[in-house]
Amino acid sequence: MNLVAAPARLSTAEADFDQKFQQRLHWSAEQDAAIEERVAAILADVRARGDAAVLEYTARFDGVQAASMGALQLKADELAAAFDGLPAEQRQALQAAAGRIRRFHEWQKTQGGETAMYRDEDGTLLGQKVTPLDRVGIYVPGGKAAYPSSVLMNAIPAHVAGVREIIMVVPTPARRDGSSKDSKGDKNPLVLAAAHVAGVTRAFTVGGAQAVAALAYGTAAIPKVDKITGPGNAYVASAKKRVFGTVGIDMIAGPSEILVLADGSTPPDWVAMDLFSQAEHDELAQAILLCPDADYIEQVQAAMNRLLPTLARAPIIAASLAGRGALIHTRSMEEACTLANRIAPEHLEIASRTPQRWEPLLRHAGAIFLGAYTSESLGDYCAGPNHVLPTSGTARFSSPLSVYDFQKRSSLIEVSEAGAQQIGRIASVLAHGEGLQAHARAAELRLKP
Amino acid sequence: MNLVAAPARLSTAEADFDQKFQQRLHWSAEQDAAIEERVAAILADVRARGDAAVLEYTARFDGVQAASMGALQLKADELAAAFDGLPAEQRQALQAAAGRIRRFHEWQKTQGGETAMYRDEDGTLLGQKVTPLDRVGIYVPGGKAAYPSSVLMNAIPAHVAGVREIIMVVPTPARRDGSSKDSKGDKNPLVLAAAHVAGVTRAFTVGGAQAVAALAYGTAAIPKVDKITGPGNAYVASAKKRVFGTVGIDMIAGPSEILVLADGSTPPDWVAMDLFSQAEHDELAQAILLCPDADYIEQVQAAMNRLLPTLARAPIIAASLAGRGALIHTRSMEEACTLANRIAPEHLEIASRTPQRWEPLLRHAGAIFLGAYTSESLGDYCAGPNHVLPTSGTARFSSPLSVYDFQKRSSLIEVSEAGAQQIGRIASVLAHGEGLQAHARAAELRLKP
Repeated sequence: MNLVAAPARLSTAEADFDQKFQQRLHWSAEQDAAIEERVAAILADVRARGDAAVLEYTARFDGVQAASMGALQLKADELAAAFDGLPAEQRQALQAAAGRIRRFHEWQKTQGGETAMYRDEDGTLLGQKVTPLDRVGIYVPGGKAAYPSSVLMNAIPAHVAGVREIIMVVPTPARRDGSSKDSKGDKNPLVLAAAHVAGVTRAFTVGGAQAVAALAYGTAAIPKVDKITGPGNAYVASAKKRVFGTVGIDMIAGPSEILVLADGSTPPDWVAMDLFSQAEHDELAQAILLCPDADYIEQVQAAMNRLLPTLARAPIIAASLAGRGALIHTRSMEEACTLANRIAPEHLEIASRTPQRWEPLLRHAGAIFLGAYTSESLGDYCAGPNHVLPTSGTARFSSPLSVYDFQKRSSLIEVSEAGAQQIGRIASVLAHGEGLQAHARAAELRLKP
Repeated sequence: MNLVAAPARLSTAEADFDQKFQQRLHWSAEQDAAIEERVAAILADVRARGDAAVLEYTARFDGVQAASMGALQLKADELAAAFDGLPAEQRQALQAAAGRIRRFHEWQKTQGGETAMYRDEDGTLLGQKVTPLDRVGIYVPGGKAAYPSSVLMNAIPAHVAGVREIIMVVPTPARRDGSSKDSKGDKNPLVLAAAHVAGVTRAFTVGGAQAVAALAYGTAAIPKVDKITGPGNAYVASAKKRVFGTVGIDMIAGPSEILVLADGSTPPDWVAMDLFSQAEHDELAQAILLCPDADYIEQVQAAMNRLLPTLARAPIIAASLAGRGALIHTRSMEEACTLANRIAPEHLEIASRTPQRWEPLLRHAGAIFLGAYTSESLGDYCAGPNHVLPTSGTARFSSPLSVYDFQKRSSLIEVSEAGAQQIGRIASVLAHGEGLQAHARAAELRLKP
């Protein structure tokens, strides 16, 4: 592996820029037909056989043998014990992060997340009643990408929304070399501790399509939930998409992305490290810099060359930059903003002395980080807003995970006798126009003779 | 066809109530594998061949021959002409309904649908920026279920949200007997007029999975949209589910439902007609009455027997009631509320003198209609709130179509130099805990030495 930082070097002034730019951006969310088929079979099997099927798949895919689902359940005291067992520094960091995330989502709840109504001039009461979901399932990936911060970011909004039961599933695959400490596979104590801090009610050490199926349909041991959130591999994504409608789901996540819009005023080392911090997630992650200052781009490249060898995950970073990264020289900051909107990135840093100048030009992004001090990694852990964000251009039409994802609205309508006279006449005309006579008659019965 | 009103007659006091109740409620949202396969092929074909494929499927499925997509486009002036050609009564009713729907959704936009932010004690700015989607597609069913009110309910929230381009697709299948007026099939003037009133930008007379594909991927004639909303048949539902992720979609709708909670104070004729008004939609629609007063249930049954023969759609109503309807005698209004929550109905009428007493007990419903004068049909057309509501129990986790469906949020984060010192230390500890060193270093670079 050649450990160099070799992102594509593009310029909007080149004739073939558009073609090269599209090639870099390309990422297909299309699903593999073979995976789809296997997932459909797993879902049907868990639906039919319940816990027995979940236990079999857990043995087969995770190498974890358990006689009953009880052995795969983590109760509240086990989560609390994991928290108590952490070093003080980690305990404090988890609690401080949870506190900040909770405060942001509590504020968010005041922005449309509460029941509200008004009365019309004709006495009609109209409004929306906001209710938390009864029970949700949170999928937490196991293995190499087991992130306690994801537990906080999924469970805290649910807790703030008022969800009574938060069920976490997290696979604990046994190591293939047999070195796992116990027969249940390796548990990540930070993940368990985060679940404790975030208000998770119960947890099961199961994963994959079988865990999604158990949450969607319910088994004897795992209760049926109303919605499933959280990231996972291709099997989990396919399973979530397939149970959508039976339960609610959040977005299907693609590889992580960062776009840095730089005017040249931020230390190049900072920008280089911010690009790395996204590239280190996995080889398919995407890190892009847009900047109108050619000299500054060279400084960032030099900083990358210097810093890359100092990082433990340098091989992943190098692969990500070579395959999907780009440093793009633009004609102006305005042009950079236009390109940013075409990308609709998950994370968008405005590394500028005047971020407020550019923010209004940016229409599509999961989260916008303003100014040199706002590194994306602060948002990933503890600034407060959610780190579960739309990827692969879906910020064009979707939003960060939020307290709203764990609530639903019911419309409220109360028409007075006087109101029914006015509104009923309109409804009657339109219902007859649609050929729905009973609709019309229901309105007409309320009219005074 | 035996034209009698024969809903199931159940009582919660019976030993086998639960089983019978579950049987009545059962409706499967599972998709037909054969339909799924055909839809996947149509999507792939339209994606590869664009307009040529759309024209071929439109000829094959709708019997509409067109030399180019231009011939299937309806421009703004054609929509306006349809409106101008309506009788005055219909023009006025459409505008009055549109006005009421627009007012409600404008109010809704003030409930969390606008950019907001706050500053933390450490100077950190946090918030959410709300932006309308750029372009949306609205699917309007053709044929027997072409409802102008659906055009209003889908397009007006998009318009209020600030969406610049609203593209409507509506199939105009030619009659099989060859009696259609022109080669493009039959257009419904009320649907076209509603599109004019609601602010639709452009319309195409195409439908089915091919229309969904064209909107999701874009063709030379039909621009790619960011989100597709609106009801359709099984092919349309399967296509929407399949393109979810490439574009946003609203819910997958099942058959329509009404649940009436009655304390016996509303005239029985009114309740009977309200049940009919849902049953007349189609044979799979569901109408249920919950009431603790056995005499009143008999009065409603008598009213149904008397009123049914007077209605044009009596055969559909009779089939719906016999197959899926129920009059359920409960022990109390409280028990009725508990059952209502198990059903999580699309429409829930509280036919009571004291609807405010029962409303707080109701957790799951698409829309709640309070009091005798609030017939569901008023909400269907013009009370103001949206009539696109979650069906088949999905009100447990989803909400009415809204202005929020046509907007998205971007998180805003601006950390000050002082804030970066505090937040950065927390982020550093957690990032190291997750093994993400570049994340930690990005935070640490902002710390003062």
